[in-house]
Amino acid sequence: MAGTSADGIDAACVRIDGSGKSMRVRFLWHRHRSFSASLRRQLLSAMAPAEIRTEQVARLHADLGDAFAQAAWEAIRAAGVRERPSLIGLAGQTVCHLPAVGRSAGACRGRTVTLQLGEPARVAARTGLPTVAEFRQSDVAVGGQGAPLVPWTDWVLFRRDSVSRAIQNIGGIGNVTWLSAGGAADEVIAFDTGPGNMIIDALVAHATGGRRRMDRDGRRAARGRVLHDVLAAWLQHEFFEMEPPKSTGREVFGQAFVAAQLKRLGAASSCPGDWIATATAFTARSIARACRRFLPGIGSGSAAVRPGQRRKYCRGKTRLRAPTELIVCGGGAHNPVLMAMLSAELPGVVVRPVAALGIPARAKEAVSFAMLAAARVDGVPANLPRATGAARPAVLGQIVHP
Amino acid sequence: MAGTSADGIDAACVRIDGSGKSMRVRFLWHRHRSFSASLRRQLLSAMAPAEIRTEQVARLHADLGDAFAQAAWEAIRAAGVRERPSLIGLAGQTVCHLPAVGRSAGACRGRTVTLQLGEPARVAARTGLPTVAEFRQSDVAVGGQGAPLVPWTDWVLFRRDSVSRAIQNIGGIGNVTWLSAGGAADEVIAFDTGPGNMIIDALVAHATGGRRRMDRDGRRAARGRVLHDVLAAWLQHEFFEMEPPKSTGREVFGQAFVAAQLKRLGAASSCPGDWIATATAFTARSIARACRRFLPGIGSGSAAVRPGQRRKYCRGKTRLRAPTELIVCGGGAHNPVLMAMLSAELPGVVVRPVAALGIPARAKEAVSFAMLAAARVDGVPANLPRATGAARPAVLGQIVHP
Repeated sequence: MAGTSADGIDAACVRIDGSGKSMRVRFLWHRHRSFSASLRRQLLSAMAPAEIRTEQVARLHADLGDAFAQAAWEAIRAAGVRERPSLIGLAGQTVCHLPAVGRSAGACRGRTVTLQLGEPARVAARTGLPTVAEFRQSDVAVGGQGAPLVPWTDWVLFRRDSVSRAIQNIGGIGNVTWLSAGGAADEVIAFDTGPGNMIIDALVAHATGGRRRMDRDGRRAARGRVLHDVLAAWLQHEFFEMEPPKSTGREVFGQAFVAAQLKRLGAASSCPGDWIATATAFTARSIARACRRFLPGIGSGSAAVRPGQRRKYCRGKTRLRAPTELIVCGGGAHNPVLMAMLSAELPGVVVRPVAALGIPARAKEAVSFAMLAAARVDGVPANLPRATGAARPAVLGQIVHP
Repeated sequence: MAGTSADGIDAACVRIDGSGKSMRVRFLWHRHRSFSASLRRQLLSAMAPAEIRTEQVARLHADLGDAFAQAAWEAIRAAGVRERPSLIGLAGQTVCHLPAVGRSAGACRGRTVTLQLGEPARVAARTGLPTVAEFRQSDVAVGGQGAPLVPWTDWVLFRRDSVSRAIQNIGGIGNVTWLSAGGAADEVIAFDTGPGNMIIDALVAHATGGRRRMDRDGRRAARGRVLHDVLAAWLQHEFFEMEPPKSTGREVFGQAFVAAQLKRLGAASSCPGDWIATATAFTARSIARACRRFLPGIGSGSAAVRPGQRRKYCRGKTRLRAPTELIVCGGGAHNPVLMAMLSAELPGVVVRPVAALGIPARAKEAVSFAMLAAARVDGVPANLPRATGAARPAVLGQIVHP
């Protein structure tokens, strides 16, 4: 898979036994492979709302397909003969995501339009393995936003009878999945929380003249101070007011957002470290607010329960009293400043990286798409209509045979 | 399917029994549905080498998907309960086709890049039927040009032991399939011959200020005279010198070609009828030349054989002596001036429309893609490497389940 950060490809190998809710997943291997500078340049130039030649879209579809094929090939070699994969899941690279109006920002009239590039037949031909792709279009075709698609996999991987968990992915965009203790799949709540690393990354790139793409280990944010007026203004963004299901993307919190905010940031402080600290706080605060506002189990004091104590999940308005955890995955889990801010914003909630559960933070999304590929082959619907807004459950993706 | 003319969708229903070379096909129903003016405008604005917003590509992918879904739905209703289809083949709308260098014009460095729009999951969701799509990418992924893909279906439909046949499609682009008497699939020769109706259509649109899109029944060409100097200059185009396999598209013989030739045409004649007659002759002459030059059985005198006489196909340089027919399909078969010019250019060859064989000329390509869908489900490779340049036979397309 390749995320909204547009920085490269995450390939993961997993072993999957069983199917549907009984699926068991063992993480084996992960590698992040950065895009070449030239491919990344092409990719960013194609990302909506860019103007581009149709030919470039076609070329990028092929080039990304080859990059995915290479990543898949390396994963197969790394897995070795004993664990040779039998199936590939290909998330593709989103270059345009405009969710249906009334549900989300960056919207289009009445229906969702989304486009993922990375030609799957090239992956299948190169690896000789059946490749499942175009997961999002299957959900969009039945009226969904095509995102988020990981909630079902989160439910399979992380649901517990005695603990309520929020799985917070912090990639380019942030998205959360709420798994109440003992809850069923159709009780899962999931939506995009807003920016993940996207604004932080863009400000680092701006401040370093493009030499750096991310705030490694949160070092720049650690040296800065949060500009509270700017933060307060950003938190007024209409996206945060919308009710789930909702999804967003680079169209809303990408380059255009950052470009529009540079003047405000420059007026508030001349120190780029302050800008980056503010963007980091923006991500943490918007996540925490979204959790408090839209998740039943994360409210003030709602987690003041002793570990081990067990309560049945209650539908409706009743606050959940089971202990709550926020499991963080995606690149943001490697940013200690962001993690600390999140913890501070969510008193009483145990915030911990997904690595503590046996899956590297950066590998988690790729693991999810491997699971979605298996669900496709098993014929198991894997969208959650409550999360995507789809009219009905759908088996996601298309199988491309080599 | 939707052709390079970008005028609309051809939907066909067929009944298919058997598989592979034993496939039997019965034509049931065909309908051409024109694109709405607004969709056609969007489509033409997206066609390479256009500049466009990535978002427009994504939107067009969805809009075309809906248009295909609507056409498929009408076909299903028209078929009625007794012949309710079980499978859909979706050719998609090509918006960019840049074949690999060294084989074709409008080329790109070393590999083919092609893009078809019309989101198949929307068709599957709307119709409730499995939908096979992305046929071309399967061939491109194994090194082919992704075109032409109809030759295998031509071989299944039209091969005879006692007659050698060339199947000439005249859509926006012209392409020919050569079926020698008694020849095997791997003896088929097929390639794009150059322009079909594309230049004629563009000149009619230019001459009428966009009020007409085509020369219905060849009426304008019939009133004009061929400008032989212009015709001779056009026939110098490098595409005609290239050896098969070769394919071409709107990038080479589309709007840019026409725009570049308007001055030359205006200097030669002020009468648009003459321009259209010349374009019609260009199509006929380029097809006839391609047949004489690259097909073993259509040469001067090569068809001077009595009907009923049977010769075994001979590989290599030996001229084939079986009687030859040129079966014309596509919109061009409805242009009597074009048909007459073709007959005149190919003395001794019986030129006849495919309708004489039970398939309406405009339906033929759609019938071929229905057959390709069936071949996908049967697991039968349906590209001919000799025709597309692919490294190996490949099962074409991806199955999208509803």
